[in-house]
Order: sequence, then C-alpha cells, then structure tokens
Amino acid sequence: MSVVVTRIERCDQALAQTLGAAGVATVHEAYGRRGLLASYLSPIYRPAKIAGSAVTCQVAPGDNWMIHVAVEQCQAGDVLVVAPTSPCEDGYFGDLLATSLQARGVLGLVIDAGVRDVADLTEMQFPVWSKAVFAQGTVKETLGSVNVPLVCAGQLINPGDLIVADDDGVVAVPRQAVAEVAQKAEQRLAGEAEKRERFAAGELGLDVYGMRERLAQKGLRYVESLED
Amino acid sequence: MSVVVTRIERCDQALAQTLGAAGVATVHEAYGRRGLLASYLSPIYRPAKIAGSAVTCQVAPGDNWMIHVAVEQCQAGDVLVVAPTSPCEDGYFGDLLATSLQARGVLGLVIDAGVRDVADLTEMQFPVWSKAVFAQGTVKETLGSVNVPLVCAGQLINPGDLIVADDDGVVAVPRQAVAEVAQKAEQRLAGEAEKRERFAAGELGLDVYGMRERLAQKGLRYVESLED
Amino acid sequence: MSVVVTRIERCDQALAQTLGAAGVATVHEAYGRRGLLASYLSPIYRPAKIAGSAVTCQVAPGDNWMIHVAVEQCQAGDVLVVAPTSPCEDGYFGDLLATSLQARGVLGLVIDAGVRDVADLTEMQFPVWSKAVFAQGTVKETLGSVNVPLVCAGQLINPGDLIVADDDGVVAVPRQAVAEVAQKAEQRLAGEAEKRERFAAGELGLDVYGMRERLAQKGLRYVESLED
Amino acid sequence: MSVVVTRIERCDQALAQTLGAAGVATVHEAYGRRGLLASYLSPIYRPAKIAGSAVTCQVAPGDNWMIHVAVEQCQAGDVLVVAPTSPCEDGYFGDLLATSLQARGVLGLVIDAGVRDVADLTEMQFPVWSKAVFAQGTVKETLGSVNVPLVCAGQLINPGDLIVADDDGVVAVPRQAVAEVAQKAEQRLAGEAEKRERFAAGELGLDVYGMRERLAQKGLRYVESLED
Amino acid sequence: MSVVVTRIERCDQALAQTLGAAGVATVHEAYGRRGLLASYLSPIYRPAKIAGSAVTCQVAPGDNWMIHVAVEQCQAGDVLVVAPTSPCEDGYFGDLLATSLQARGVLGLVIDAGVRDVADLTEMQFPVWSKAVFAQGTVKETLGSVNVPLVCAGQLINPGDLIVADDDGVVAVPRQAVAEVAQKAEQRLAGEAEKRERFAAGELGLDVYGMRERLAQKGLRYVESLED
Amino acid sequence: MSVVVTRIERCDQALAQTLGAAGVATVHEAYGRRGLLASYLSPIYRPAKIAGSAVTCQVAPGDNWMIHVAVEQCQAGDVLVVAPTSPCEDGYFGDLLATSLQARGVLGLVIDAGVRDVADLTEMQFPVWSKAVFAQGTVKETLGSVNVPLVCAGQLINPGDLIVADDDGVVAVPRQAVAEVAQKAEQRLAGEAEKRERFAAGELGLDVYGMRERLAQKGLRYVESLED
Repeated sequence: MSVVVTRIERCDQALAQTLGAAGVATVHEAYGRRGLLASYLSPIYRPAKIAGSAVTCQVAPGDNWMIHVAVEQCQAGDVLVVAPTSPCEDGYFGDLLATSLQARGVLGLVIDAGVRDVADLTEMQFPVWSKAVFAQGTVKETLGSVNVPLVCAGQLINPGDLIVADDDGVVAVPRQAVAEVAQKAEQRLAGEAEKRERFAAGELGLDVYGMRERLAQKGLRYVESLED
Repeated sequence: MSVVVTRIERCDQALAQTLGAAGVATVHEAYGRRGLLASYLSPIYRPAKIAGSAVTCQVAPGDNWMIHVAVEQCQAGDVLVVAPTSPCEDGYFGDLLATSLQARGVLGLVIDAGVRDVADLTEMQFPVWSKAVFAQGTVKETLGSVNVPLVCAGQLINPGDLIVADDDGVVAVPRQAVAEVAQKAEQRLAGEAEKRERFAAGELGLDVYGMRERLAQKGLRYVESLED
Repeated sequence: MSVVVTRIERCDQALAQTLGAAGVATVHEAYGRRGLLASYLSPIYRPAKIAGSAVTCQVAPGDNWMIHVAVEQCQAGDVLVVAPTSPCEDGYFGDLLATSLQARGVLGLVIDAGVRDVADLTEMQFPVWSKAVFAQGTVKETLGSVNVPLVCAGQLINPGDLIVADDDGVVAVPRQAVAEVAQKAEQRLAGEAEKRERFAAGELGLDVYGMRERLAQKGLRYVESLED
Repeated sequence: MSVVVTRIERCDQALAQTLGAAGVATVHEAYGRRGLLASYLSPIYRPAKIAGSAVTCQVAPGDNWMIHVAVEQCQAGDVLVVAPTSPCEDGYFGDLLATSLQARGVLGLVIDAGVRDVADLTEMQFPVWSKAVFAQGTVKETLGSVNVPLVCAGQLINPGDLIVADDDGVVAVPRQAVAEVAQKAEQRLAGEAEKRERFAAGELGLDVYGMRERLAQKGLRYVESLED
Repeated sequence: MSVVVTRIERCDQALAQTLGAAGVATVHEAYGRRGLLASYLSPIYRPAKIAGSAVTCQVAPGDNWMIHVAVEQCQAGDVLVVAPTSPCEDGYFGDLLATSLQARGVLGLVIDAGVRDVADLTEMQFPVWSKAVFAQGTVKETLGSVNVPLVCAGQLINPGDLIVADDDGVVAVPRQAVAEVAQKAEQRLAGEAEKRERFAAGELGLDVYGMRERLAQKGLRYVESLED
Repeated sequence: MSVVVTRIERCDQALAQTLGAAGVATVHEAYGRRGLLASYLSPIYRPAKIAGSAVTCQVAPGDNWMIHVAVEQCQAGDVLVVAPTSPCEDGYFGDLLATSLQARGVLGLVIDAGVRDVADLTEMQFPVWSKAVFAQGTVKETLGSVNVPLVCAGQLINPGDLIVADDDGVVAVPRQAVAEVAQKAEQRLAGEAEKRERFAAGELGLDVYGMRERLAQKGLRYVESLED
C-alpha cells in the first residue's frame, strides 16, 4: 500500500504568486474561512513567505526515508508537505535535504513534526513551518507514500493543492478553487487598502463598517460607570 | 448585560513611563511578586516594551466585534487588553485594527487569544502580546463589554490599571498602587545598578548578599566528592 | 543531604570546541542518537552556540538560592545546568546572575525552568536555553545541591559532562565519551560536506545513498495515479 | 501583606442547595454563561457534586502552609478554594487535611494545583477538583492570605461566593447574584424537563425550538448529494 | 456553502458489529495501522464500545446549532461525528441532545470539542468520546454543514464511514474498506486467541514469534553485567 | 550498543511490600521528597497499587520489539519499566504482552509512552501507569536495551530499584536506600495515624503542628475585613 504517484496536476504559478502576495490571513478569508493548518505549526525564522503546489509525503513516526523519495517528485515552485502517521516531533529534516530541495527549486517545507539544523536553514533562507525544532535523529526502515491525500496539522491536503505559508502560519486551497479564491482575495485586498487609509486618518471601524445601529439593536448600552 | 463604560480613571503618565523603563521583572518584584499574566503570553516580536493604562475588552469566543467598540474608548497612551469568555486562539486582531489603534496613539495590545498579520504588525512596530499567532477568522455576532473588570491570562485587570509589557511578558498594577510601586521600583533599580557593578567585577552573590552563614545554618555541606 | 561538590573533572576544552562547532544534531548522531534534552528547551535568542563542561545545580521549585552557590563553583568555559526537583516555570535567573557568570567566563545557562530579563541577556549576549520566559520571582529559603548527578529536561547529566547547545536545542555527552564522539563527529562532518556538494549539484539522496534497490525490495510502487 | 480575613458573608444555604442540585452547566447558563473555572480542573472521582460558600486561600508555589491557616476559617457547608501565586502542580493536599476539613463539615476542595492521597480521599468521599494528581511534597515557609479575592483557574472568586462543582467542572457565582441565578436556574430546569420528554418521544430540536425558518433564511441548503 | 446532504450510503450493520466486537486496536491493525483519531479524544466513561456509520457535522467554534440539524439526518445504528472549524473545547452537547439521539437509536457521539452533563450521559449510558469535559455554553448563530467530508481529531472522515470507538479511543474505516478490514480483523483475532493461550501457559513472545535469530543478527548482546 | 543485562540485584520483597502498603506519597516523603516520576503518568484504572523491583527496558520510538526481550528477564514480583529514546505516545503494550507478564508473576507496567487494550487490561487487573491511552500500532525493527539505567518520565531508574505505584502516580527508590526509606516510612505512618485521630476529633493543624507562633513571627495578620 506504499505508493509514489508520479503524475500530479499543479496549480497555476501566476495564481500562486497572487495568493502568496495576499498572505495566509487574506487567503483563508477569501476561501470562506477554511483551509488553515493548526496554529502549532510555526516558521523557523521570520519573515518568511511562500506559495506553491503541494507535493505530499506520508512518513512513519521517527522515519524520514520517504522524504528522500519525495524529493525526486518535486519541481521548481513546489512546497513539500510532510505528515507522520502517528504524532512525532523527531527531527526529520535538516540542511542536507534542504540543499537537495533548494537545488530543485522547491520553495519550502511544511512538516507536522520536527526539524533540525535550523541555523543552517536560516542562513540558506530555506523556510520551514514545523511543529517543533528537535535534533532527534530518525531511521530509514519503513515505507510511506508520496503524492497521496493526507491530513497535515488537522487539514486535508491533496497533491497539487496550493500551499500558502507566511509569518501567520499555513493555509491550503484545493487546486480547483485557486482561481476563484484568487479573485476574491484581490477584491478583499482592494477593500482593505481603502479601509486602511480611512483607519490611518482616524476614522473608526464603528463608522467605516456602519456597526452602531446593529450594536444598539442587540442591546449594547453605554454608561459612564458600572454603577449607572 | 453588555456595557461600554465610557469614563475611566487612567494612570499618571509619568509614573507609567517610569515603570515601563523599569520593565516587567522589576515591576513585578516591586509590587510584591504579584500581577504577572500567564507565561503563555508572548510578544510577536522582540524587543518590545510598553507601559500604559488598560482599556479592557471582554469578547465572545471567535468573535471580535467588541474590539471595534473598544477602539473608540482608547486614548493616546492606552494599552488595549482583550480576553475571551471561553478559551480561544482565533486571530481576533490584524493590521487594520492596529492601524486604527495606532492612529489614536494606543501603545499596544495584550490579548488572551490569537492574532494575525504579524508580519505587518512587526513592520508597523505595533507590539502585541498574545497566546497564539493564528490566522483563523472571527465573526461579529455576539456582544461583550468594554471597560469592565476582567481576568486576562489568569490576572484580574480593572480598566485604568497600569499594564507593563516587555520581552519577559506582561504585568498589571492596580491604578491605586502605581505611585508606591514606582517608588519601590526605583529603589530596586538603584540597588541593582550597584550590585551589577560588583558582579561584573567578579564579586559573588554569596558575599554581596551575605548568604554564607545562613546556608551553613541550614546545613549545606561542601565536599570534594560525593564519596566524602 | 544538600551538598556542594567542589572538585569535578571537566572535559577537554579543545574537544569541547570541536563538538561545539559540529553542533547539536551532529553530536547527537555521533553519540549514537542519544543525549538530547527535551525539545521544550529553547534558546532565548538565535543564533546561539556554546559547548562546555556542566556544573550542575539542583534547586527547589520557585527557589533560586542554590544558583548563587553554584556560581562560585563555575570556571571559564563551563555551562551551568539547573533543574528543579518539581516542575516549575518561575524566572530563576536574570541579568544580575548572568553578569556574575559572565564575569567568571561561563558560556551560558541550560535551565529546566523559566528565565527573565531576556532583553538584557540578549544585549549582553549571554545565551540561555530554558523551558519558559517568565518574570515570576523566586525565593531563597530551601537548600539544594551543586555538582551532583541530576535529570534535566529528561536527560541524566553528571557534573563535568559536555553540554553542546545551539539553535536546535541541547545535547549532553558523558565526559568519558567525549573523545570518541568527537572523532565520529568529524568523520560525519567530512561525509556531509561531500554530500552537500553532490546535493547542491542536483544529485538525489536516492542515488547518493543507493536507496532505490532496498525501497523496491520493501515493496514501494511507482504509479502515475492512484487509479493505477 | 499576608492577611487572614476572619469575617466573611456566606451564601444562603437553601439557595446553595438549589443550585447544587441544578448542577454546573445549568448554573453557568442561568448566570449568563459566566463564572466557569478552566476545563483543566477535574474531579478526582465521579460522580461528585457539591455547592457551598467559598473560603479562599492564596498560597505560594510549592508551599501549603496557608491551607492549615485556612482550615480554621472554614465552617460547615463551605468549599475551600486554593490558588497558588505562580502555576504549580505539587500535591498541596492529602488525607490528613481532608480529615480536618471533613471534621468541620467542609464539603470539598477546589484547587488550581495538585492533590495526593486520592485513593484515601475517594474512600473518605471527600471530593476534590484539581489541576493534577501529583504526590510531590510541599514546604511550609512562605505566607499567603486567606479570604481575599483571588483568581482560581482563570476565574475571579471572592470569599463567600457560591461554588458549584460536579462531574462537568466548577462554576462560581457572586454571593450577591445567587438569588437571581437560582430563580433563573429553576425556570431553566422546568423548561428542560418538558423538552426532555418531547425529545424522548422523538420530536426534533429543529421543531421544538422552531429553528427551520431561521436556518433557511441564513441560507442552509438541503441536497441529496454534494454533486447537486 | 452550508449544506446538509440527506442521502448517504451507510456501512453494512453486520460488519459494523463484527468490527465493534474486534475493538479499536484490532481494527486499526487490520486496516494497515491507519485510521486512528488523535489520542486526546477520550470516553466520558469506561467501559464503552460502539461501532456504526458516521453522520458528520461541521460546526462553527462555540456554536452548536448544526448539531440540531444533524440529529434529523441520523438513523438507528449511526454514530454522530462533530468537528469545529477552529479548535474549541466548549460544551457543545449535553443530556437534551443525547436524549434526542438516543430516541433515534444513535449509538454515541465522537466530538473534537467539549461536552457537558456527563453525569447524566453516564446514567443514560449514552457514550461520548470528546476532547474535553467543559460546561461552557454555545450559541446558535452560524451555519455549518452536515454529511460532508471533514477532519476530526486529525483524521479524514466521510459520511457513512465506519466509526469504531472503545476504551482505547476511536478509529475510522472508509465504507468501501469495511468488508476487507472485517476479514483481516477476524483472522487477527483467531491468531491472537491462540497466542493468548500460549502466553498464559508461560511461553515467551521471543519463541512464539521466533524472534531470537533476527535479534542476534541485528547485534543484540546478552551480558551478565554492564562491565562485561 | 544494545545489550540485555541478565543478572540484576533485586529489592528485598518484604521491604517492597512495606513500602507498597505505605503508598507513593509517603514513600516520596520518606525518601526526602525525591524519586517521583512526572505527573503525566496515570493509572489506566483506579484503584491500583503495586511495589516491586524494576526491570528496565529502553525502546526506540514507535517500536516495541525490546519489550518482548524484556519479558524473559522478568521474575515474579518485578515491575516492568519502559522508556522510549524519543518522546512517543504510541500503544506499545496490550493484552497479549500483559498475559505473558502476568503468567510470570510480574506486578504491573510503568511506561513513558502509550498503551492499548485497556478494557482487557482492566478486566485482567493488570495495572499500567502510562503517558497515554492510544491504539497506535508499533513496529519491530530497532534494537534497544534491557536492564540498563534509564530516565523514565523525568526520573533516573536503575534495574533493581524499587518502584511503588498507586493512584497518586509512581515513585522510584534506589535499591540501596530501600531499607532506610522503609524505616522512615513506618515512622511517618505511625505519626500520621495519631494525627489523623486528632484531626478527626476536630483539632486544628495550627495547634497539632504548633504553627501559630511562627506564622505570627513571619508577620501574618488576622483582620475582620480587608478595610481594617
């Protein structure tokens, strides 16, 4: 049952760049407040920002063998997504694998486990979003699969889905939804730019969003003190 | 039962600056080892250091509506303090709200929940102490209250209390105690400066604090090896 | 039962420097994938990298008295290792103690508890690996021991053991094993340098490590799609 | 600053019994979805259910001295509420203190820390809601306070407040609000009894609560399959 | 985007009973060591054991409205599976909803969130596997979906998948794989029965499984003491 | 470096029984408040109480092979102690291994990892103290060691050390210290029995322990209200 799927559809690279520029929070909103990976993933250095197509890699706990297999399936513009079949914080990934991925043009790694050599990875500017920084070594004994659907940090990810990762975390968007999400994200950004100006000029969200009436209807009371 | 209290007493700004300069650890000691918020709050970037009067904001889980209401109650020199009524790590706050607060001269945010857009907040140099960085969006459906007493990260905070936050975390001092705490903090800092010099010159705490006798009385033994 | 052992054997300093340069991940591998302290220890700033002989200090929960005792036992090139007898995140250590240790040439602190004044420690460039950043003050009431074997973050550490700490975490190597581990680490580094070049040139781990045959034997299948 | 307040107002015992019978979930709802202590508190055995007036006890981390002081302030029908000034899971409380409290008619203990001798406590049927079960011993060195307001598991508790604790956790109601909350709880229970019968007979919440129209207005769609 | 899918395929009930009797550990092994939900789910009482077809329900954080919608979609023999779109420990479910589900013949609830009224649920013998026991109330404001694929406690679950839950936790098996997994589980159980007898009679796993040779090949050494 | 030590010294069985009867909290106190394993270990059922000599077993993460090797080294009256070399919650142990250990007269298992088949283990009355209940299967690929010193749940344990485990958790006492600890435990129990009677009769700890004077010296003040 261990397979490597060698032919996957990838996202449109221009759309990936659009959504990468928009950032995780905006993409998550534009995709209907869906797609976020768990908040325990964090970047090993800040700032960092990438967007690309997922190559997925399911690994055994404490065993990084399949990452070597996955490297061969990666292309320029991809993001490698690794998840163990049982929770594990071992250091699956270090500077040698990063060198190999960087040589292929891979943009970064998202891993629901640990990573090591973070000083080197930072110097190389190879970004990683991980559950832990931990030097614990892994073995190469047990097979897994590459480019199968998997759950990473609580989110279902299919190979070829768009991964956007930045200082806020990681979001996944199904390949089929990328075009629509990109359109909504751009609308959202346009609206935000205008609001940012108004806020910077001192206008209040209460007025910009016209909230006062609905707050009053719900029963919000303004008093000078709690004794009122 | 959702109210906005519009008139609160604030701390003396000069004393706030004194205690801000002293920093969280010193203020906590000067206030009798009290007032610390839980250690799970951490700054989104380092270094960061603020001190100001608390505007408090109680929110529903996953609902940031009341933060918009709270913004209007904030003045220059304030620190916004937000706590949900049930534990939540959603991203209640991002760069638009920060723009609005910064336009009003608010110094920073302390939130017992999540925050997003941290790359923008870092660039804007708007400091936030939060429980999580998480892009998860919130809704605007449920009321809460502004400027009521609340518990944030395990600490009771009244509107107008002094909030000091730096790289070590966050401490709250009741408005009525600020003058006395400031005096004690200054004494403490004076004592520390002198001790720092002696330590830098190679003197030992055992001698600087005169600890040797009491250690011996308690029964501390010095041996060359465990076999002695 | 509270003792201070005043005469301990230390590691060879040249070997310590060799292993410090190799870093935590490499030392851990060279020592047979052993010796790591728990991943919840993290450096208060990055990058940071030290290697030296352990002076150990067992403390009561919430009581930093024995750290003052331990300072006197430290020499240039040592690393102070502190563990409480019951789990505790209080801020046992700040800039004054760091000043004292730095004056004695101590390289850094590893503590299975909290630390404070991290802005000052960062400015001083005195590195600390801790479980928490927390300003909570401690008392000076209860004895502990210095230079006894202790368990710190899940790892047994004897006084004089080599401590290597960097951005990946902390590893301990028994003093008696340091020479052998240093030899293996150097072999490992030599091998890695050669591999790094090959990976950078685009070669795959599958080929560099000759993995393809064993993967096939274990039953790994390559397919164009999951329907195959 | 360590004080023992010897005269506190207590809750009406009849109302306490009413709310104890209603249970934590109902009291929490009747009090406007407020008052819950954090979910990490759990009973050492199930089932357990108590309601009484809080005697509060602030303790130093790892130091149970003040609990002995607090015992003297307890009366029949009270619930002892203990919180440390810094997070701690040590075993502050065991069968001897329970014997002493039980002799005074105290109903149980709520403690934001650890407890031990749980086999004995279970046999004695002295219920405890705690953060941990941990045998770690404590010392008697540092003062605290009795019957002062404190924050326990995230909730502000004043001496004399009503504490209701059962298999769902712990809720606190300010003494002044007890009568009103009791009235609302009884209304709530009456309504629930009627609904329980209807549900048991097979009626749906959609109909019992008349939700169908509002769901449709919000845009809920029923489809035979996702392809529809 | 909020939908209720009204027509789902369910598992064969006889196979469900077979796998329910086999239990979670055996089913997980028979399904290739896959399908487990995270270990933080635990039963509110022990012993408890169920197996049935999943009706899935995606809810907003802190909002249990959709559970009422889901009840109508449940049939006898089903297991309700609930997951929030953002992590939440609120008490989504209590004795009234359980009464309603029990009236329909639903076997139990698996929820990646909190539950309350656990004393009543235990008395009713309505089993629940949850992330927390917490009385925190929820609102009814935001739509979700029923019978869509969702991720619950780290595992992808499709409506109609088989859910087996017992004292060890919860495992999900895709509907299409149930027959094959049932066959393997029965083989496994047959083998285990024979081994259990041999172990009870004093035989060793080393011999029953014929492990001695492979252990020796891997290099395991037997010594009388570590000095050997 | 994987060894099985076949000849270990065990504790005196009569002393083991004495300390088992005393229980974890008393043994921990009698041993100078030392020896406790971390509070995250908990019994799979309550009540449970054992005391015996440790057979130690170091395992690879996710690999239970060495437990089969360890079984052969166990004798009647032993307690098996298992620790992985990297943190892991997988289900290393189930009813078959328990049957094998029970056949040899082993009293129970302490494991810094997960366990499964807990319903069967409960029915068999084979007690286990574990970090998790998790059905996740393990492999048999990597060697470890049996009867070497190891750190389990934060505590150093040598083969042959006394393990006492009950509803409060687990404590380890070095074999050499068992006689002295047993003596102190008995003194302690005698003292407790007398105090228990006095407490049951209504005497206060303040008087039984003569605390009033020292409390006053430390500055404790009794007031009728906080305004005093």
